[in-house]
Amino acid sequence: LTPPRHRPVDSRIYPRFAGVRTFMRLPHLRDLEGLDAAAVGIPFDTATSFRPGARFGPEAVRSASALLRPYHPAFGVDVLASISVADYGDLPVAPGDTVGTYRRIEEGLAPLVDAGVFPLVIGGDHSITLAELRALAVRHGPMALVHLDAHTDTWDEYFDQRYFHGTTFKRAAEEGLVEPAASVQAGMRGSLFGASDLEDARALGFEVIPSEQLRALGPDAYARTVRARVGDRPAFLSFDIDFLDPAFAPGTGTPEVAGFSTAEAVALLRSLRGIRLVGCDVVEVAPPYDGPGQPTATAAANVALDLLALRALSK
Amino acid sequence: LTPPRHRPVDSRIYPRFAGVRTFMRLPHLRDLEGLDAAAVGIPFDTATSFRPGARFGPEAVRSASALLRPYHPAFGVDVLASISVADYGDLPVAPGDTVGTYRRIEEGLAPLVDAGVFPLVIGGDHSITLAELRALAVRHGPMALVHLDAHTDTWDEYFDQRYFHGTTFKRAAEEGLVEPAASVQAGMRGSLFGASDLEDARALGFEVIPSEQLRALGPDAYARTVRARVGDRPAFLSFDIDFLDPAFAPGTGTPEVAGFSTAEAVALLRSLRGIRLVGCDVVEVAPPYDGPGQPTATAAANVALDLLALRALSK
Amino acid sequence: LTPPRHRPVDSRIYPRFAGVRTFMRLPHLRDLEGLDAAAVGIPFDTATSFRPGARFGPEAVRSASALLRPYHPAFGVDVLASISVADYGDLPVAPGDTVGTYRRIEEGLAPLVDAGVFPLVIGGDHSITLAELRALAVRHGPMALVHLDAHTDTWDEYFDQRYFHGTTFKRAAEEGLVEPAASVQAGMRGSLFGASDLEDARALGFEVIPSEQLRALGPDAYARTVRARVGDRPAFLSFDIDFLDPAFAPGTGTPEVAGFSTAEAVALLRSLRGIRLVGCDVVEVAPPYDGPGQPTATAAANVALDLLALRALSK
Amino acid sequence: LTPPRHRPVDSRIYPRFAGVRTFMRLPHLRDLEGLDAAAVGIPFDTATSFRPGARFGPEAVRSASALLRPYHPAFGVDVLASISVADYGDLPVAPGDTVGTYRRIEEGLAPLVDAGVFPLVIGGDHSITLAELRALAVRHGPMALVHLDAHTDTWDEYFDQRYFHGTTFKRAAEEGLVEPAASVQAGMRGSLFGASDLEDARALGFEVIPSEQLRALGPDAYARTVRARVGDRPAFLSFDIDFLDPAFAPGTGTPEVAGFSTAEAVALLRSLRGIRLVGCDVVEVAPPYDGPGQPTATAAANVALDLLALRALSK
Amino acid sequence: LTPPRHRPVDSRIYPRFAGVRTFMRLPHLRDLEGLDAAAVGIPFDTATSFRPGARFGPEAVRSASALLRPYHPAFGVDVLASISVADYGDLPVAPGDTVGTYRRIEEGLAPLVDAGVFPLVIGGDHSITLAELRALAVRHGPMALVHLDAHTDTWDEYFDQRYFHGTTFKRAAEEGLVEPAASVQAGMRGSLFGASDLEDARALGFEVIPSEQLRALGPDAYARTVRARVGDRPAFLSFDIDFLDPAFAPGTGTPEVAGFSTAEAVALLRSLRGIRLVGCDVVEVAPPYDGPGQPTATAAANVALDLLALRALSK
Amino acid sequence: LTPPRHRPVDSRIYPRFAGVRTFMRLPHLRDLEGLDAAAVGIPFDTATSFRPGARFGPEAVRSASALLRPYHPAFGVDVLASISVADYGDLPVAPGDTVGTYRRIEEGLAPLVDAGVFPLVIGGDHSITLAELRALAVRHGPMALVHLDAHTDTWDEYFDQRYFHGTTFKRAAEEGLVEPAASVQAGMRGSLFGASDLEDARALGFEVIPSEQLRALGPDAYARTVRARVGDRPAFLSFDIDFLDPAFAPGTGTPEVAGFSTAEAVALLRSLRGIRLVGCDVVEVAPPYDGPGQPTATAAANVALDLLALRALSK
Repeated sequence: LTPPRHRPVDSRIYPRFAGVRTFMRLPHLRDLEGLDAAAVGIPFDTATSFRPGARFGPEAVRSASALLRPYHPAFGVDVLASISVADYGDLPVAPGDTVGTYRRIEEGLAPLVDAGVFPLVIGGDHSITLAELRALAVRHGPMALVHLDAHTDTWDEYFDQRYFHGTTFKRAAEEGLVEPAASVQAGMRGSLFGASDLEDARALGFEVIPSEQLRALGPDAYARTVRARVGDRPAFLSFDIDFLDPAFAPGTGTPEVAGFSTAEAVALLRSLRGIRLVGCDVVEVAPPYDGPGQPTATAAANVALDLLALRALSK
Repeated sequence: LTPPRHRPVDSRIYPRFAGVRTFMRLPHLRDLEGLDAAAVGIPFDTATSFRPGARFGPEAVRSASALLRPYHPAFGVDVLASISVADYGDLPVAPGDTVGTYRRIEEGLAPLVDAGVFPLVIGGDHSITLAELRALAVRHGPMALVHLDAHTDTWDEYFDQRYFHGTTFKRAAEEGLVEPAASVQAGMRGSLFGASDLEDARALGFEVIPSEQLRALGPDAYARTVRARVGDRPAFLSFDIDFLDPAFAPGTGTPEVAGFSTAEAVALLRSLRGIRLVGCDVVEVAPPYDGPGQPTATAAANVALDLLALRALSK
Repeated sequence: LTPPRHRPVDSRIYPRFAGVRTFMRLPHLRDLEGLDAAAVGIPFDTATSFRPGARFGPEAVRSASALLRPYHPAFGVDVLASISVADYGDLPVAPGDTVGTYRRIEEGLAPLVDAGVFPLVIGGDHSITLAELRALAVRHGPMALVHLDAHTDTWDEYFDQRYFHGTTFKRAAEEGLVEPAASVQAGMRGSLFGASDLEDARALGFEVIPSEQLRALGPDAYARTVRARVGDRPAFLSFDIDFLDPAFAPGTGTPEVAGFSTAEAVALLRSLRGIRLVGCDVVEVAPPYDGPGQPTATAAANVALDLLALRALSK
Repeated sequence: LTPPRHRPVDSRIYPRFAGVRTFMRLPHLRDLEGLDAAAVGIPFDTATSFRPGARFGPEAVRSASALLRPYHPAFGVDVLASISVADYGDLPVAPGDTVGTYRRIEEGLAPLVDAGVFPLVIGGDHSITLAELRALAVRHGPMALVHLDAHTDTWDEYFDQRYFHGTTFKRAAEEGLVEPAASVQAGMRGSLFGASDLEDARALGFEVIPSEQLRALGPDAYARTVRARVGDRPAFLSFDIDFLDPAFAPGTGTPEVAGFSTAEAVALLRSLRGIRLVGCDVVEVAPPYDGPGQPTATAAANVALDLLALRALSK
Repeated sequence: LTPPRHRPVDSRIYPRFAGVRTFMRLPHLRDLEGLDAAAVGIPFDTATSFRPGARFGPEAVRSASALLRPYHPAFGVDVLASISVADYGDLPVAPGDTVGTYRRIEEGLAPLVDAGVFPLVIGGDHSITLAELRALAVRHGPMALVHLDAHTDTWDEYFDQRYFHGTTFKRAAEEGLVEPAASVQAGMRGSLFGASDLEDARALGFEVIPSEQLRALGPDAYARTVRARVGDRPAFLSFDIDFLDPAFAPGTGTPEVAGFSTAEAVALLRSLRGIRLVGCDVVEVAPPYDGPGQPTATAAANVALDLLALRALSK
Repeated sequence: LTPPRHRPVDSRIYPRFAGVRTFMRLPHLRDLEGLDAAAVGIPFDTATSFRPGARFGPEAVRSASALLRPYHPAFGVDVLASISVADYGDLPVAPGDTVGTYRRIEEGLAPLVDAGVFPLVIGGDHSITLAELRALAVRHGPMALVHLDAHTDTWDEYFDQRYFHGTTFKRAAEEGLVEPAASVQAGMRGSLFGASDLEDARALGFEVIPSEQLRALGPDAYARTVRARVGDRPAFLSFDIDFLDPAFAPGTGTPEVAGFSTAEAVALLRSLRGIRLVGCDVVEVAPPYDGPGQPTATAAANVALDLLALRALSK
């Protein structure tokens, strides 16, 4: 029996600007039966160090995703015909309470993890990734991290708080949720508090590829580096939208200049075909700082489709 | 047996910024069983004479409606406890084809009219009201029109087209959908092509109250005028957001200065308590022209709640 | 022989959003033959003390004026059928050189003054009014000033410069271009450098009506005050857009809160019917600070139409 | 001996658009010697229920305050010649940690309270007021609260958190920081979760004046009501910028339509002359949602000047 | 006898921010005598599938073109000294009526085609190109199409409508207006409804070069490909602004990420020197979605100048 | 004895969004003792030929610089530990009076030049560079100019004015402030009034590298060219933000498409390590035209940090 394949609202009947905004205008479901993957919003931004607003990230990415179509020409695959995808809605969060929100996220993702439904998480600030990793590690154990970001997010604490959007991957390594030796952080750039900001990430065992080096490598060499470390492990891909240059993604909390274009970013993502993804997120979209044409949300929606396509191709 | 009362997503679990954007975060339903009223989007703006963009009106009003709460303190009523309301989603439309869209709207609204479900329509440009009236007239016959707008929308044609956002109420009168003698148009202002612009509306039988006169009347005298004409007839209230001044509603297609504040507008609306509403719409919200804080969509969402409250109170 | 009456581009053929942006889409003419009035842009903002940008005021007001129609319902007059109006384009200016610009304005306006063509000037910052008054005084002698503004603009100098947007009316009085005893400044408000800011204006002979007092007076009493002072003199009406509250006119250089709504402003203007206007301007529209729906430019365009109507009615 | 009177940077040398942005371009001092009042920023927005961004409120209000001048014509007083004022900078805060921030605010304000320096606090979300009241109550005991806001902020908790921007005044009453019987909350409006939202505030002992009633009262009757309750007590005035209508203050976290104009607001504030203010704040300015001309920050800066003037007049 | 060479308004007298906005501040003429080329606006966006607003494209491009100067350094040619250019204004359109607009465009362009005046059309959505091609084919027969766009625009219909901005080039091929075998479509990218979206274009005979392939080719190889197909045929170049990445052109109706920079785009255009252009357009500029500095309109104006230069060089 | 090293406000106590906005949140000092470098604002835009607004450049760059951290990973240096830097505030300027402002700038910079404090000037329009060069030439004599800009700024005059933002480097050469034979202007592009626009710069002796040529050269060859001309001379680096493409820097007065990305720009700047900088500026940031996320100001702040790093490394 063929599992149900959810399709977006029919654009021949409802134009793409019509209808309640779910991810790609897919059904909004809480029933996981037959689902391969689900878009899940986590509208949380309490753990932001500079510009808040990422709590409206899921809304904005859903809105921009109305333009997405199911066929991915670069991969030659109809993503939604390959895997059954729906919009699971947003998880509960507690604004002002990071630890309380972590508990809610872990509980909220557990049913998806149990059911083997691939979570495509739309953030939210980067603090949420820790709770996502906790939920997935229950099933998958320590995962390989494929991290594209302007920052390593490996500080130890911030204002006496151990859980913040800049401490996520230190905590994830400490908690054994990711295997640094199998992980690659790439795209780092911008001024730092000190040399230790990058060294600390390396000391944890991560491979760190700064932006200039990543640009010099190009997609093929990057993909070889990732594959060499990740191998067959279950992998989690975390895409912080500030990996992109502010020209392409102005709507984010801690922008860093000299970043990547969307053309560069999708070339890097597409080079990863075959990686065994078990989860992913796109985070740090802060709509109040986006331009009138919403380029940041549009970029994030397209990254999300690429991630779904990578999942579809890895099955 | 108590009919089901739909409630918004629980704000104690999902903050108001969370969740898929439906009207007031009510359930998105196509099943009309037990419903008293339904928010219905009609994302159409092909018939706009100046600034288009109202096709994104339903999305913006749904987004802004996340801030609405069910209890209406001015009326002292919990609107959603009084009537059972859901979000019916958007009707199909055909961008570029007004007549084809009218057919889709009439077909789309018919099940609601048949089931006696009160339609709270979110536009869309003002052309859509004609199709709404056609759908409602099947059940209610010629209705009283309570019209708040900067324009009478009683031109005869526009660029050889009889169906346009400026011809709606001439057509409605000609087609016998509204009873001009029972109707009141109020708020008219701004420069005209000629004196006939207002005279034509009066010649059709409408009472026309220009803005200066309306402001001089105040809510009580306005309500008396409306009640005297409407009486017990089934009434349709059409609220064009350009009734408001551009300071309060910049995001609209044909703004006219010297308009009404939201405080003035809600006072007028609330004076109409007891009118027998059978349908209503809030139209001409053009989000691309709204300010960063989205005051226009916020105003429209609040007007929509007032209209639901009027319906709840008229039952 | 009937003089030619210029009409806007025909909106039945060219929608209001079509065509090269001239004022009200009237012909762009340099030939003054048969003209009663001309819209004239003066795109100058060098003499601005806070936010520049008014050099783009003429462009923005022309753009917004596309929405204007020739019939003025409050006065019951087709303005463009009563007087023959065209767009004279912009005068030459020298950015960075106020005195050089004054010379250009005086030379630029001279042909209109000679021909008896009523100038409807679109600024530009308020410094330009001095040069306009110089040009008009050649024909009319000292004029009555009807001034609506948040500021009296009667400082003595600014940064060693005697010609600045805050010194215009001190200079005008000193040069004998206006007759303070026949003049009224109204709408003043906001914090000052000292009590002398208003006293100086009064010492020059102007009647100064602060905003609270003006609001208390209302249109009728204001009009009586103006008429009592102006009498039959040739009058110049200068409308600084910051007379309006920033909610109605955010796009201006030195906004002051607690200002007037457009409804209040047009009521005041319309109360002046019968004043013998020989010139007027609308100044200080700074489009970079306007909202996405351009409420400031829209307000200015409507004020301009009211001024034209006042001229049409005074003939 | 005359105490030092701090003056803004001299606008005849440094134009108002020049210089490091402190409040009114006053000196940035941490030395309290000889100070009567200090502007203090508290850039915190973790406790926001809808739109965050108020952490940038102090920056925006300082920027807009560059337009303020020291002489207050409505009161006829040079505020900065009457009292000695400086900018104390921002207090330390811990984003993501409300309780930790409260501790920092209390410690941060203690030196000002000890020295009898009047704090003019620029927020930040409304949660910070509780910590301000704690700091002031050490010296003044239970204070009279003069509260202008669209909301009573008397909920009991929010997402299991007792300290949130909607619970401030319930906590303040419980902790004995304010005397509800001597307090007036005014301006409330907008939809509610239930009738209890207002009743709870009244049950705590506050007088609650909804917006329609406040508008009907007008400044004089409002002032009488306040004076009758406040008497000679030390009073704290808390001005939530959402007291203003979104047309006047779009840049705020939880806007409610049908609010007050700045003209209405300053008339109300000015009616309070003589109240014995010991502290005040202007909160909930969220700059990412402000318009391009920054009307919200401009309004807040003007409110702040009125509050300083009230303090100057009450000495 | 030398034909008249129209020049922009003299920037030494009228700064570039001054004057009525025509294309490059050239004369607005309807007299074609002696003209080589004319900028023609077609303000139509009824046939838009997602974001409307392109009806304001001609206004925005004219406004941005004020910055253009006549000398093109990359080509080493004074464009306006080589060919005589004017602004022909906008053609009549009928908003809401695509077929009626086509008729108006065909009639409107006929005099230019008859007179051999090269039309530089500023759109408007991409549907208008079909009518342009019809007008030009009367003189030139089937033309070679040089098409730069993110989409092939070769769908068969949309909402029962055969004339839409996504069906233009299927219709053009069917009507024999373009010769697909002599044509190249380049820049295609983004998700699709299915693989057929590109295959259909190829089945019609077009060469389709997706964006990744175009980027790999570079300007020289691209130009060789185009020249090989176009040869000496009369060619029409259609530039959809969404060929550019949303970072460079956010103001468009259906943005696709991973597009081209303006540096890449002008390099591609300039590689085409020598192509025998008989017409061209720049379409899909939707100003409501442009950024505050209007980068999209600025890019379009520069593309337009490059197209004029190509025409000047091909003569 | 170690000179004092000023550090930014401690981000562990005051989050980066907190505190009065000075450059990098460094102390605001007028005492030059022990200082190596000082950020100096010059808020002047009177000499702007198109869009004004650069007077707000210093405020915006200071605001964006709050995100900067002291360690520069590409150079491997803690900039603020290597040199002692403070914010000197803004210099006095006279809006509307370029010559008067030049005098103020020269007097204002003299103490820094005397004390050997490196000025990092934040503009303001490009006219200010002439006065900066005059102040520096008193100590250093004719300097090498390293100029990154879309324009050579070597016109002779503008509207009868010899001092304008487009004449700066012609004047600087004439006055002997720079040594053209030791200077390089790079990044020029965009349409011109004539071929002479570039030829004039070359005739003055400057090496001019247009944008296409600069892109082809790349950082290493560019650096070789600069070093070959500059040698050991004291050098002044002037960075006009319009060197960047409008996608990266929309907030500027005279944008030119096909410019440089921030990644390209910082690579070029970093290639200059070792140049003997004695002064620098970043000019033409016009915040009213920046996007909501302020990418232009963010880019300028990062360029400023790179310039400080170059200075730190050249000591």
